[in-house]
Amino acid sequence: MRLYQQLAQQLEVLLGDGTLAVGDRLPSIRELCAQRKVSPATAMRAYEQLEARDLIESRARSGYYVARPPAPVTTPAGIARTRARKTPVDVSDLVFEILDSVHDRSVVPLGSAFPAPSLFPWSKLARHLGSAARRADPWSSVASVSSGHAGLRRQIAQRYLRRGVSVSAAEIVITAGALEALTLCLQVLTKPGDLVGIESPSFHGCLQAIEALGLRAVEIPTHPSEGVDLGALALALERNDIRACWFMSSFQNPLGATMPDEKKADLATLLAHHDVALIEDDVYAELHFGAAPRPVKAFDTEGLVLNCGSFSKCLAPGYRLGWVAAGPFAAAIQRRKITSSLATSVPIQEGIASFLQQDAYDAHLERLRTALAAQQTAALRSLQQHLRGACRVSRPDGGYFLWLEFARETDSLALHAALLQKGISIAPGPIFSPRREFRNCVRINCGHPWTVDFDAAIGELGASLSAAASVSDRRRAAPRR
Amino acid sequence: MRLYQQLAQQLEVLLGDGTLAVGDRLPSIRELCAQRKVSPATAMRAYEQLEARDLIESRARSGYYVARPPAPVTTPAGIARTRARKTPVDVSDLVFEILDSVHDRSVVPLGSAFPAPSLFPWSKLARHLGSAARRADPWSSVASVSSGHAGLRRQIAQRYLRRGVSVSAAEIVITAGALEALTLCLQVLTKPGDLVGIESPSFHGCLQAIEALGLRAVEIPTHPSEGVDLGALALALERNDIRACWFMSSFQNPLGATMPDEKKADLATLLAHHDVALIEDDVYAELHFGAAPRPVKAFDTEGLVLNCGSFSKCLAPGYRLGWVAAGPFAAAIQRRKITSSLATSVPIQEGIASFLQQDAYDAHLERLRTALAAQQTAALRSLQQHLRGACRVSRPDGGYFLWLEFARETDSLALHAALLQKGISIAPGPIFSPRREFRNCVRINCGHPWTVDFDAAIGELGASLSAAASVSDRRRAAPRR
Repeated sequence: MRLYQQLAQQLEVLLGDGTLAVGDRLPSIRELCAQRKVSPATAMRAYEQLEARDLIESRARSGYYVARPPAPVTTPAGIARTRARKTPVDVSDLVFEILDSVHDRSVVPLGSAFPAPSLFPWSKLARHLGSAARRADPWSSVASVSSGHAGLRRQIAQRYLRRGVSVSAAEIVITAGALEALTLCLQVLTKPGDLVGIESPSFHGCLQAIEALGLRAVEIPTHPSEGVDLGALALALERNDIRACWFMSSFQNPLGATMPDEKKADLATLLAHHDVALIEDDVYAELHFGAAPRPVKAFDTEGLVLNCGSFSKCLAPGYRLGWVAAGPFAAAIQRRKITSSLATSVPIQEGIASFLQQDAYDAHLERLRTALAAQQTAALRSLQQHLRGACRVSRPDGGYFLWLEFARETDSLALHAALLQKGISIAPGPIFSPRREFRNCVRINCGHPWTVDFDAAIGELGASLSAAASVSDRRRAAPRR
Repeated sequence: MRLYQQLAQQLEVLLGDGTLAVGDRLPSIRELCAQRKVSPATAMRAYEQLEARDLIESRARSGYYVARPPAPVTTPAGIARTRARKTPVDVSDLVFEILDSVHDRSVVPLGSAFPAPSLFPWSKLARHLGSAARRADPWSSVASVSSGHAGLRRQIAQRYLRRGVSVSAAEIVITAGALEALTLCLQVLTKPGDLVGIESPSFHGCLQAIEALGLRAVEIPTHPSEGVDLGALALALERNDIRACWFMSSFQNPLGATMPDEKKADLATLLAHHDVALIEDDVYAELHFGAAPRPVKAFDTEGLVLNCGSFSKCLAPGYRLGWVAAGPFAAAIQRRKITSSLATSVPIQEGIASFLQQDAYDAHLERLRTALAAQQTAALRSLQQHLRGACRVSRPDGGYFLWLEFARETDSLALHAALLQKGISIAPGPIFSPRREFRNCVRINCGHPWTVDFDAAIGELGASLSAAASVSDRRRAAPRR
């Protein structure tokens, strides 16, 4: 292929995939020559070839522009090729497939992991973000390699105090969301091959992080309302060299379980006895309908609990701001953070810190909790009406998830596929289990204003269940060949 | 210890370390009872004890407040204890000690890794951040689990195009700064124990990332102006099972070296021959004084180059926004990112994307380049004047680092310690080498307006050198025992 043809082909790829969109100006001939080290004749011929095919157009005294294509332009296959050997898929396709399905805005998001965007104070947050960034000392931006914004860490520590936990601002490390905090904890506490105790069922992000770091999981049975089975945990700790546990002690995802205080105290004692650290994923802590639950960290006398929190569920989804109160592990966590991502965005920290100084935060939380509680009641009513005893349902005291357990033969993956065809997502049980268990279970999101669409979606869920059951009945009734 | 005493002690820790500062309101007796599950009598006695010691004060009809302490309150030793066994320091103390030393604002930052904050358009950026966050669709915040903001990725792709590189927006993954991008590349391309080819000397962040991920480094000699020695690299590739290379092909940190185009083309060919991927750390790309350098990715025909960039050095330090143009590895990088930190801050992406749409970005870059070039000239003049041939100095065509090589017996670590006493930081050579080599070398930052303080600091550097040399002369002259 001649040089001008190569050049034209390279540009065509960018035209085809939208990098250069209709109306964008292309480099001038002179610029193209300088950038690609080609002669003006070559640059000109490349553009002429693209122009002849109506992909670009020249405008007098102005240059070359991307033309409105007369027909769809396809991307040459070469650009999308993958090298299987070099790109091992180290997290499960199933989880990603299901996560992807909830990004379509037209889908009723029963499978979503987020509450409705309408529940958050976006414009107030934006005002704080803009003005905090304007007021910020530029020096703070280059000297940001630290545990995070001092005022923000103090405010977080004071919120712990209100929950009855003594946390020093000095043991808090600010992170880009809770998932970074949780991952840093795993990295500091374990090395590849180590065993980590997890809940069963468990948050799929926990499973993916464990998989990505080359760790192995020990699953501890978890009660739908009271959380981790301590008897089973005690046995597991005796029989295995578990290096750390990752538990969600309040409003557990996906169950909604919250361990009672006495159980949290017993858990702290049990872990101290075995000298095993607890990574406490506490991101739903602020979403309580009744009294604020205390974390296991409140009962920790040995500095073994690393409590991870976030503003993503209660104030500012998408801002990516979280933290870990890491006790004696804080310095190691901070160093690990510097090594993997240097620091957390300074304007984001300044903006949220500014918002937290206002009483507006508590007022927002009150509204949010009231809305979530009302939505849960409405969702339970829909389930009662459309599923009439076809499933057992958890009733958490906070958060925005419901866990449904159907008859043993129900296949939630088939249900997911069938409902997606109808524009409804659900979170099937197997994505919360490394061995793809809980096939007859489903997690439902009730974090959205419970409109008729949601009620109708539960109706569809009921209909799909009946259809599946009757197929299964017919199969069972059919004579064996 | 009685319960009220325990409670008082816990609160005292928070008073001592500033979590509760002078004037802050403490929980009411009723709140404290609910939070800690204690009786009103216990809560009251705890507060009375703290009040008796003048740590808190009660105000009529208002509650308890932190009092101005009559004497300094010390933090009980317990809270700061570390558990050596559980907190392995997996990155070198030396690097952290030196990084910490530049955070003191009163120190002349010759050792800093950042340009002067005064060179960046903070208030314009803050305006874009605030208004972009206000305009943003709330849905984007909860549906942000993706490769990043589509418009931002398109703009980055178009800037590659202007440098003569065909990069599709579809192969770009947005990250929280370049370091996250570089770490993700390492994680996707290697597994613990693998060999990675690096420059010698090399960016200390590269060494720390390799150490943290349990990888091993193969050091390739690197020329102060022309970069990696390709002969040595070819030999290393033949003799070792190198899984990936991490090179900075333009304005290398710490040398300032830029590989000429032909050498970049040869490097691409050599790596293709061995089927080894290149993680191209290209964070200084926009800071060129002359023509824009092309990255190795411009010469890559096999999809083996992952080019990592950032806005931290050229537009928005502390915002933490970077990316990788990862070719066929993009999907794997994105998945790995979801697993470790979910997504990049949405408002930060919106804000920078909004700024980039303006011509203001190019105007800013022009001013920044002109300032950096002028500062380099001034720094070289100071070195010429105060060091008079005592060292060899690189003269990069961009960036803001100078690499000084002194006589072989010079000890840059001793120099660092001596200068820090005088309020001057430098970056000693050994922090850029896994085996602590380059002891007679120093990296100097010329990214600040070259005030008399900087000139005087170079004078002190010269004086410290002369003092060290005369001590060493005397030692040499002393009779052996």
